[in-house]
Amino acid sequence: MALVVQKYGGSSVANAELIKNVALKVVESARAGNKVVAVVSALGDTTDDLITKARQLCDSPPDRETDALLATGEQMSSALLAIAICNLGEKAISLHGSQIGIKTDGVYTKAKITQIEGSRIKAALDEGNIVVIAGFQGVTDDEELTTLGRGGSDTTAVALAAELGADYCEIFTDVEGVFSADPRLEPKARLLPVVSYEEMLEMASSGAKVLQLRSVEYGRNYKVELHVRSSFSTNPGTIVKEESFSMEKAIVSAVTHNDSEAKVTIMGVPDKPGIAARVFGKLAENEINVDMILQNVSQSGHSDISFTINEEDIDKARQVMDSLVKELKAKGTDFDTEIARVTLVGAGMKSHPGIAAKMFEVLASNGINIEMISTSSIKVSCVIRKAQIGSAVRELHEAFGLEKNV
Amino acid sequence: MALVVQKYGGSSVANAELIKNVALKVVESARAGNKVVAVVSALGDTTDDLITKARQLCDSPPDRETDALLATGEQMSSALLAIAICNLGEKAISLHGSQIGIKTDGVYTKAKITQIEGSRIKAALDEGNIVVIAGFQGVTDDEELTTLGRGGSDTTAVALAAELGADYCEIFTDVEGVFSADPRLEPKARLLPVVSYEEMLEMASSGAKVLQLRSVEYGRNYKVELHVRSSFSTNPGTIVKEESFSMEKAIVSAVTHNDSEAKVTIMGVPDKPGIAARVFGKLAENEINVDMILQNVSQSGHSDISFTINEEDIDKARQVMDSLVKELKAKGTDFDTEIARVTLVGAGMKSHPGIAAKMFEVLASNGINIEMISTSSIKVSCVIRKAQIGSAVRELHEAFGLEKNV
Repeated sequence: MALVVQKYGGSSVANAELIKNVALKVVESARAGNKVVAVVSALGDTTDDLITKARQLCDSPPDRETDALLATGEQMSSALLAIAICNLGEKAISLHGSQIGIKTDGVYTKAKITQIEGSRIKAALDEGNIVVIAGFQGVTDDEELTTLGRGGSDTTAVALAAELGADYCEIFTDVEGVFSADPRLEPKARLLPVVSYEEMLEMASSGAKVLQLRSVEYGRNYKVELHVRSSFSTNPGTIVKEESFSMEKAIVSAVTHNDSEAKVTIMGVPDKPGIAARVFGKLAENEINVDMILQNVSQSGHSDISFTINEEDIDKARQVMDSLVKELKAKGTDFDTEIARVTLVGAGMKSHPGIAAKMFEVLASNGINIEMISTSSIKVSCVIRKAQIGSAVRELHEAFGLEKNV
Repeated sequence: MALVVQKYGGSSVANAELIKNVALKVVESARAGNKVVAVVSALGDTTDDLITKARQLCDSPPDRETDALLATGEQMSSALLAIAICNLGEKAISLHGSQIGIKTDGVYTKAKITQIEGSRIKAALDEGNIVVIAGFQGVTDDEELTTLGRGGSDTTAVALAAELGADYCEIFTDVEGVFSADPRLEPKARLLPVVSYEEMLEMASSGAKVLQLRSVEYGRNYKVELHVRSSFSTNPGTIVKEESFSMEKAIVSAVTHNDSEAKVTIMGVPDKPGIAARVFGKLAENEINVDMILQNVSQSGHSDISFTINEEDIDKARQVMDSLVKELKAKGTDFDTEIARVTLVGAGMKSHPGIAAKMFEVLASNGINIEMISTSSIKVSCVIRKAQIGSAVRELHEAFGLEKNV
């Protein structure tokens, strides 16, 4: 008897028919002899609708109340899924963050899980229940409601799978799995049957939206095998697991892109030790994730520092940068939202130098200018103009032969 | 500085504009120097919508999951109201049942409050917050979510007012206060400026929907003065408080009606001791509230027992009665949903005999047949045909001169 954690995203439970479909999938797994824990996101666009409601009342709603508001979405969907499962004749109970002790830090809207108490879930499973968990949320030690940020239900699912010692964690979504590129930009994109944690981490951090970055980190750290599958088919999807010798090692597995970042530049800062630490320290204090960083060569004792952030952090970043400009006596800041990032990811890159050079050549030969570059052992990332992202993805997918079953 | 608990019903917070209106009322009270605790119901028709959603998934959704589902409604509205208050520049936090320790028994969908822990609210008030509470819900000792049944937010408000030692509890609703009859049936109905707890109890239990029965009981038991007011005006409304010598004592204060009850009859039960106890004991076990009871005179060792219940309990009552018929070897049951109840309520009745006789006469002279009668020291209730309820209310309102300021 396997213990399986399943996660169903909002588009998989957007209406009554879809909830029934999910209930059926959960029950099928249970009837096949598995103990099943189902983690569920808020129905369809509920989270966005709630944010809209909050903004109608206040331009910048307090984070604490935003989290209390958003947490209701998954509490609702988890109860509804439990009801739909009961209707199929199986025992089911819904449990939310405070009931099962998903403890988080106190950073509202972006909380991190600090501890999970699995005993109540285990007891419920032992009593023959299918357990439905409200994803995306937890509570602080003071019982304050927190949410884990976008895609947080994935993290809930993987963290639970780790805590419960599940055999694997199935992430059901509205796509068939992980592809060699976004199929909306590149119709020839190929489904990847197996991807290593490291590749998936790079893909998630460079724009692949199918799995949330933190959930992949959790999976890697606790060795939880992830199965990314469609809730609308019975196909096996993509398995994310540890790299092994037997694993097919493509030099380049996928080309990912991210067009929801902005490039921020702080200009004319004094070129002396500690400045960069001050800039990025202050951004970190304000919970702004910085991705790529570029520091220009010093000119007459001053330099420019550029970095990329998520678009949603722009307002907060503007405030931080304004105060930094004053503090550092810098010349000013620039916010550029017309950028995008294209990334090649592949576990095989480690042993194949020259991938970056070929990437730059492909982009250049298609008239695409590279503004920033970032590399790791298994990825190369370039910031380009947003308007060129579609052709960049397609040209790279073609040039590296990703549509073929290499 | 007064401590005030305010309660806002669902129709008072049905959309963003109305929530802003409520926020303004809350803030006005705070700026007038009061410490304010606002208890809020789910937005508009949220509770009904959630029940509909649950029924789309399951004909009889499990009570536990129904409560987990319904509890989200008030959690949502309390966060939204806190956000709207913050937008007006005042500090506000929302708190729900498990955070403030509103403990209940484990009777899902109809739970009773067993204990309230006021310390967290008091601390929040002392920190200068307006505190917004999710009404209608609590948690058991095992942190299971429960709801208090229809109108439960009134009970939450009054129970909190009692626990916190509030100066009074304002119940804001979509009507101007308590009237001498339902203004929809009797346009000449008069607003009652002051009503005693006892009168309000009789009115609530006999069909006046403006306050939930249990909240009035709480108010009486803990001497919490209730102000029933409109959230759409600044009128003082109706004050519900202890009867005092100075209080205007109308012989008859109001005529109320209830057209959502059914009359249940179990026929041909053996006329021996213990039968009634068995019938009503079993109904109580199943959490079915019985109101009026009538036992016919025994004929050949058998009798009929009739009683009234809420329409919403009919399905459950049918099951209970079927098993009782078998157990008691009774002749059968009859369910009559075409009944209604009309009631005269007045604190002055105690010292004025003859009210009942006049009531029967008024009904008879208007061709209205009386099927069951129930009296207390301050009320007389008659079950009649549902189709005649409008004329019964109007004729009694006229005959007892209720439109005049007696």
